[in-house]
Order: sequence, then C-alpha cells, then structure tokens
Amino acid sequence: MRERVLSGMRPTGALHLGHYHGALKNWVQLQHQYDCFFVVADWHALTTADNRSAHLEHHVYDMVVDWLAAGVDPDKATLFIQSRLPEHAELFTLLAMSTPLSWLERTPAYKDRLSQAPDAESTSYGFLGYPLLQAADILVYRAGWVPVGEDQAPHVELTREVARRFNHLYGKDGHSAPLVEPQLLLTDTARLPGLDGQKMSKSLGNSIAMRDDPEAVRDKVRRMPTDPQRVHRSDAGEPERCPVWPLHQLYTPADEREALAQGCRSAGIGCLDCKQPLIEAIVREQAPWRERAQAVLDNPRQVHWMVELGCERARTVARQTLKEVRDVMGLSYG
Amino acid sequence: MRERVLSGMRPTGALHLGHYHGALKNWVQLQHQYDCFFVVADWHALTTADNRSAHLEHHVYDMVVDWLAAGVDPDKATLFIQSRLPEHAELFTLLAMSTPLSWLERTPAYKDRLSQAPDAESTSYGFLGYPLLQAADILVYRAGWVPVGEDQAPHVELTREVARRFNHLYGKDGHSAPLVEPQLLLTDTARLPGLDGQKMSKSLGNSIAMRDDPEAVRDKVRRMPTDPQRVHRSDAGEPERCPVWPLHQLYTPADEREALAQGCRSAGIGCLDCKQPLIEAIVREQAPWRERAQAVLDNPRQVHWMVELGCERARTVARQTLKEVRDVMGLSYG
Repeated sequence: MRERVLSGMRPTGALHLGHYHGALKNWVQLQHQYDCFFVVADWHALTTADNRSAHLEHHVYDMVVDWLAAGVDPDKATLFIQSRLPEHAELFTLLAMSTPLSWLERTPAYKDRLSQAPDAESTSYGFLGYPLLQAADILVYRAGWVPVGEDQAPHVELTREVARRFNHLYGKDGHSAPLVEPQLLLTDTARLPGLDGQKMSKSLGNSIAMRDDPEAVRDKVRRMPTDPQRVHRSDAGEPERCPVWPLHQLYTPADEREALAQGCRSAGIGCLDCKQPLIEAIVREQAPWRERAQAVLDNPRQVHWMVELGCERARTVARQTLKEVRDVMGLSYG
Repeated sequence: MRERVLSGMRPTGALHLGHYHGALKNWVQLQHQYDCFFVVADWHALTTADNRSAHLEHHVYDMVVDWLAAGVDPDKATLFIQSRLPEHAELFTLLAMSTPLSWLERTPAYKDRLSQAPDAESTSYGFLGYPLLQAADILVYRAGWVPVGEDQAPHVELTREVARRFNHLYGKDGHSAPLVEPQLLLTDTARLPGLDGQKMSKSLGNSIAMRDDPEAVRDKVRRMPTDPQRVHRSDAGEPERCPVWPLHQLYTPADEREALAQGCRSAGIGCLDCKQPLIEAIVREQAPWRERAQAVLDNPRQVHWMVELGCERARTVARQTLKEVRDVMGLSYG
C-alpha cells in the first residue's frame, strides 16, 4: 500500500504559472509514488473577509480544471472538496477541545495579522483557528506526508503537536494511537516571480494564467519591465537587474540563456529579442495544459462526477478516522 | 405551529434537586407550550480538561433518565445528543469564519478563566469558542426562544449578534435571513442551595440526587448544619441564619413554615423536628421520579431508541438549516 500524501489549495479561481511551478508540477510527480489526496480548501477561503466571494463555485471549478490541465490524474489521485465532508469540521471541533489556545496564538500567520490588522473586529475566531482546521484536514486522512514549502513548515509542525497531544490524552487503554503525525515532504519546487519581479499573485495583477492564450502571454511578457538602467536599445544591460531573467532561469536552457545574457550585456540584442524565446517556451509549456483543459471543459458533467467520486473516496477514509476518534474519546454511544 | 425552544445540559451524570428546580421543572412546563428541543451537550463537556471523562456514556444516559424521570415527555419534546449531529460542528466552523475573535474574548466565562487559569496551556481553543459552539447549537435549530437564567443571558446575546452578523454578510441577493435570532425566555426558576448553603453542586458534595433513596435523603438532611449560634437544643435559633431554611421556603407551605420558624425562635422545637417535614416533602416530590425512572431502567433499549428517534428529528431540522446556510454562502456545489 502506498503511503498517503495530503495537499490542497484555497480556491482562488484559475491558476497561474506560480501555482504550477510551486505546487502542481510536484503533485503530478507525487501521484505516481504516493496515494495522493488533493483537497479544495474552500472553507479556508472564508477565514478572511476579502475572500467571502459570491463566485466561490466558479473559483473551485476553475481551479480543479487547472489541476487536471496540469496533469493531475483522477484515476491516480483523490480530488475532493473540503466543504463536502463535514468530518473536517467535526474533527476540527473535537481537536479544539484539547488544543491550547497559546499554540494558535503563536503561529506566524496570526502574529503577522495582529501586527497588521487595523482593528480586532476584522480578525475572526476562524482565522485564529485556521492552522487547526488545516491540521484537521491532514489528520482526518491520516496522511503520512505533507508536501509544503518552507513557509508552511510551522503549520505541519503544529499538526504534529496537535496529533501528539490528542494521542497522549486519548490513546490509552490498549487503543493504538488514533491520529498519525504527518511528516514534512520537502520537495523541489520553484518560486516563480511575477511580471514585475514580485511574487506572482493574481491579486497583484502580475501573473500569467496557466490558460492564458498565446496572444495574452506574448502581450504580458512584452510589456514586462526590464533592467531599469537599460534605457535605450544601445545601452548595455545587466540580467541580474532584470525581472525577465528569473523566468529565463526557469524556462530557458543554460546555453541559450548564456547567449542572451551576453547579448544583453553587450547591447547586441534588444529586450524584445530576449523576451521572444521566453514567450515561446511558456506557450510551449501551456500547450498540453490547454489541450487537457479543453477536453475537461467540453464535458463539464464529467468533472463534477469526478469530484463527486473523489469526495466519496475521501469520505470513506474520513468516516473511519472519525469513528476511531469518537471511540477513543468515549463518544461512541447512541 | 408551535414556536421552538432550545435548551440543553452538559452531561454530568445523575442530576440533583438543583437541576430539577433550576431547569427541568421549567422544561416540563415548556414542552406543553413550545416545540422543545433538549440537547445533551456532550462536546461541551470536553472543553475543560477535568471533564475529559471515560464515563461520558454513563453520564449521558444517567442524565437522560433523570430528564425522563422529571417528566420530560419524548412524545412532546425532542431529546437528542449533540455529538450525534455533525451539523453542529459544521455550523460552528462556518460561523467561526465570520465571528470576530474579540466577541469571544470578552465573554464573562473566558475572562473569568483567564484571571484564574494557572497557565495558558490549560485553556483550549475550544474553551474560548464555547459560546460560539453554543450559538451553533441554538441557531442550527432556528430556535425562537432560549430559556436560561440571568447568568447565561450574555451567551444568548452573543448568539443574537452572531446570527445578525451572519445574516448581514450573507443574507443578501433576495435570500431571506438564513438564521433566526433567538430571544431570551426568562422563566421562573429557583436556585436551590446545597446541604451546606452553597450552590448545590455534585462536585461540592452538597447535593441531593433526584434519585437518592429515602434513607439517603433522610441522612443527608439530618446531617445538615443549622444555625451555628444554636448550639444547644434549649438555645433559641434564627431561621435566617440556617442553611435548612431556604429549602423550607421551597418545599414547605407558608403556614407550616411559619410555625417552624416560631418553634425555632422560641426553642420550642429542635433542629431534627424542623428537618422532618422537609425530608418528607423531598421524598414525596421524588416518588413520581423514582417511578418513572424505574420504568425507563427496566427497559434500557427503549431509552436508546428514544434518543435515536430524537436525533433523527433533530437531524431533519439541522440538515435543512445547513442546506440553506451553504446556499447563501455560495457553498452549494459539488
């Protein structure tokens, strides 16, 4: 039996290249080695006011389409929606009873928020509990591994502590430990900068969507700022100062890249010349995504049906965990 | 259609006279006028470490037997167990996203706890959220009325605020308000002092259980301290200084009580003489409870079946509320 991996994303709609290189590309690899559970964390999208969206359903399905476009295979991995499984909420509620408030008050995300929030009213009880709901998302599937970036490592550590405490409190009397402490699966992902050199983010307006058409990709890349010190075509440039360069590092083979750098430093090529191979590489990368996405969009009932099946598979595991959790807590009566 | 009332108790095992006069007597009245939902709040018993009991199941059924003994009628009222209805946890989780942390931080119970708790580790995230889980318990049944004592009034007020905020955030676009703001049903209940004059409480060891047998009642009342200044039988006493007196005020008719007071003040009767009619009144009150409890205990499967039926009735209402809540939140997809 393959070990289980859990990962997920908040539904923010159509995904961009940053999502692909930062997570999806990795998911596509992992699904061959692990029993992967990929969750649409839609309740998490409600923890902050700005995400209380009337478009949640579209955001969910736009995202799932991009998962499939990237190559996530519903025959290999289990794709499902958090809000369809009340077991997440039940485990969250039960874990809340044994998780010290102080553990949540010292998570980095909460401390950041406190230092930024204009008023306390805007921070919800659910926001403080976000990492605990995330812990429940992981623990309810007894996932052995959680592939996350370094910045999410404290959340996985909290999940481990929550599980350990629960097992300590309730795992006695000959019961085996009811919850599994997940391990951090540190993986090789790339952080892709956006069109302006900041982190790529839809809300910053600096992203290239996975399904942007070739014209949009071309326009966006051509409008990218370059080395601010290269004002005229005849000025020499420095790749290290240019926001386009990190994209080349991801998309362009080393030898070709070296030629571009030389052309830039010698003013032998212009910025549009330099951008052209990048545009082509991105459009080439997108081709199979567009093809897979089209197949999905041509048959929208199929994606709903696929999600339905994923929810049922997840439910089988979640129900079993909750049954054992209730048993060890002495809550199995009725 | 009768308006709905919600009330509940944490499962602490067999109940005492304080529970009867403080709540159950009222429930028995209310069930004739209202559509009463009475919940065994077993998750709430987990919010503090000292209640994490291996005996939860016994506590639950001992309590339900006493509800029935008191005259709660499962054909009139809906009796059910919180932990059997994951809808409570789901609504709690959803409400958490829109409820400001500050609202929970300023509840009296939490502030009391903070001022008493020896260390922050012992206060759980669930303890802070206790009033919000209670709000979910009420709102999931769209109860119009909550019968509580004055000390619980802030919790009902919080429930109203939580509902109002949710309705404000999500009740737009032609949807009717999804949640009902419950009203406080201030009722005529008596706070019964315990055997030592403190509030009657099982943990203080000063209680008379509803199903204590007549010998136990007699022994407990006879051992009660009386006016500390009446040292000898021949000393005159003062009822206002005597812990037995408040019980007489509840159990003994006014004219008979007046005669006892005169006998005390004139040293005409001894303390045991004074206690005797109280013992008889309590034993008389208990008789129908014992009879009803025996009928229930003779047929233990019936009480399980009755609770099962209550859970199913509750589930029908809770599911409908959650369906509408998910609808207005834009979470109804799949």
